[in-house]
Amino acid sequence: MATAAKSVCVVGSVAIDSVETPTGSAMNVLGGACSYFAVAASFFAPVNLVGVVGRDFPEAERRFLGDCGINLEGLTETDGETFRWHGRYHENMNMRDTLDLRLNVFEHFVPRLPESYRGSEFVFLATIQPSLQAQVLSQLQAPIYVGADTIEHWIHEAPAELRGLLSRVDLFTINDTEAALLAGETNVVKAARRILQMGPRHLIVKRGEYGALLFSADEVFAVPAFPLEEVVDPTGAGDTFAGGLMGSLAADGQVTGRTIRRAIAYGTVVASFTVEDFGLGRLRTLSRDEIDTRLRQFMAITDFHS
Amino acid sequence: MATAAKSVCVVGSVAIDSVETPTGSAMNVLGGACSYFAVAASFFAPVNLVGVVGRDFPEAERRFLGDCGINLEGLTETDGETFRWHGRYHENMNMRDTLDLRLNVFEHFVPRLPESYRGSEFVFLATIQPSLQAQVLSQLQAPIYVGADTIEHWIHEAPAELRGLLSRVDLFTINDTEAALLAGETNVVKAARRILQMGPRHLIVKRGEYGALLFSADEVFAVPAFPLEEVVDPTGAGDTFAGGLMGSLAADGQVTGRTIRRAIAYGTVVASFTVEDFGLGRLRTLSRDEIDTRLRQFMAITDFHS
Repeated sequence: MATAAKSVCVVGSVAIDSVETPTGSAMNVLGGACSYFAVAASFFAPVNLVGVVGRDFPEAERRFLGDCGINLEGLTETDGETFRWHGRYHENMNMRDTLDLRLNVFEHFVPRLPESYRGSEFVFLATIQPSLQAQVLSQLQAPIYVGADTIEHWIHEAPAELRGLLSRVDLFTINDTEAALLAGETNVVKAARRILQMGPRHLIVKRGEYGALLFSADEVFAVPAFPLEEVVDPTGAGDTFAGGLMGSLAADGQVTGRTIRRAIAYGTVVASFTVEDFGLGRLRTLSRDEIDTRLRQFMAITDFHS
Repeated sequence: MATAAKSVCVVGSVAIDSVETPTGSAMNVLGGACSYFAVAASFFAPVNLVGVVGRDFPEAERRFLGDCGINLEGLTETDGETFRWHGRYHENMNMRDTLDLRLNVFEHFVPRLPESYRGSEFVFLATIQPSLQAQVLSQLQAPIYVGADTIEHWIHEAPAELRGLLSRVDLFTINDTEAALLAGETNVVKAARRILQMGPRHLIVKRGEYGALLFSADEVFAVPAFPLEEVVDPTGAGDTFAGGLMGSLAADGQVTGRTIRRAIAYGTVVASFTVEDFGLGRLRTLSRDEIDTRLRQFMAITDFHS
């Protein structure tokens, strides 16, 4: 039975980033998990964004997000400056240092869903304080599928709130070192089993250039990353992975073993485009056709099943 | 057209290992790349082994190898002791320290193929001095497919000999850090392109718990590892991966895009059994049925193509 496409609601940070890598830099570009997620998801489904920016947020970036078909009714502008992050990647691109971080208006962000968002059925809670992520859940009428992400900071600083959140979401995404930290276990399969016991129906462990693993009570799905000859800037890879994933699920309108695997493949492909340029640069010119072409390539380079 | 199954000839080290991990140890057990490879390959095809042991080599281990259907005509016994290695793995099992290494009779190993091996069509040169690996090639009549492995030591100590070898083999296997070192390039795709230019038709980059990548002039194939809840001892994972791979190819009797992908999947599965116990412990009781069952599981957990 075909199911109607749904929209995706995403809550999280909208930022102005400055990024340095061993080969170049991009200063004062659109960033933040929510921006990355929303643009990635917009290739698949309508997106309702919830975030906060300051008076300095560039009108051109607001227009860009709108042109992606992203509903900005939930993007609040308040007195002050937009969240700013300045980071520098190491030679191997797997590690980075934060040179400067100013939360600015994001420090007092309390997500409030506009009335028109409350019926959202596919929802993603990008990294913010776990108790704020939980507050969003209480504003939703009847979500079908809620995903959440976190970072190491909240595993250390708000473990009880994070546990509370995990008992209420369908999907939790986390990278491999965070999974080991949260579970207190370095074996990724054992760590995943422990995190599933905390509540989520699906757990995705992100492994960067090595791909991703999906775990549920009765299933494991393993997928490599798309092999790339050039990684310009890894920023936003995880967020656009999640955006492509949730967008694909919303487009399918239902979460099954088959739709979630396809969604993970789409997330992988969108993330592979993201890292080919600084910030959201590559996604600004990306087309759905290019995504589908690379999905077919990805299927070809991983196929030993036929 | 179906092609007749072929035998596999393997040349390399036969050793007595002592291994310590954070959870246990195994002292004085059968080890060495050639032993691991040969036992793994024997599940798929007849194996002709070339190696050297000392007078202390246990008769029971010689019998075990023979019972696997491995031809030991090329296993020379000479005065002295068998190659011995004693290693200890770190907490995360990805790193190990060599506590003791005694080459013993292996120090003066010069591989000589028995007359009956010289017609071998599938050949694997496990890690030894690259110039000795090259000497084996000169003893072969008309090999169809020759694979070779190496370790970091030879990239540093015998770079010219290794380059010479690479220009003469069909398949080269190497782990990701060795690939970066050999190519002088950390991006794995770029590193692979450079190594392919050194001669081999196929390059497999082994990524341990993250799987493997196959590169050729016109193709990339990416496969994750089989996710395991328990890794007891990683020793021999790479060698049994290669053994399962070459055994599967020899059983197919030909190397095509399809047979090499299936062979990599078989290698992945055999390696996943290897690490479930110390040394060759798991492979001593393993059956071909168990391998095929896990191959089907592996296909199921990696499938998003249907």
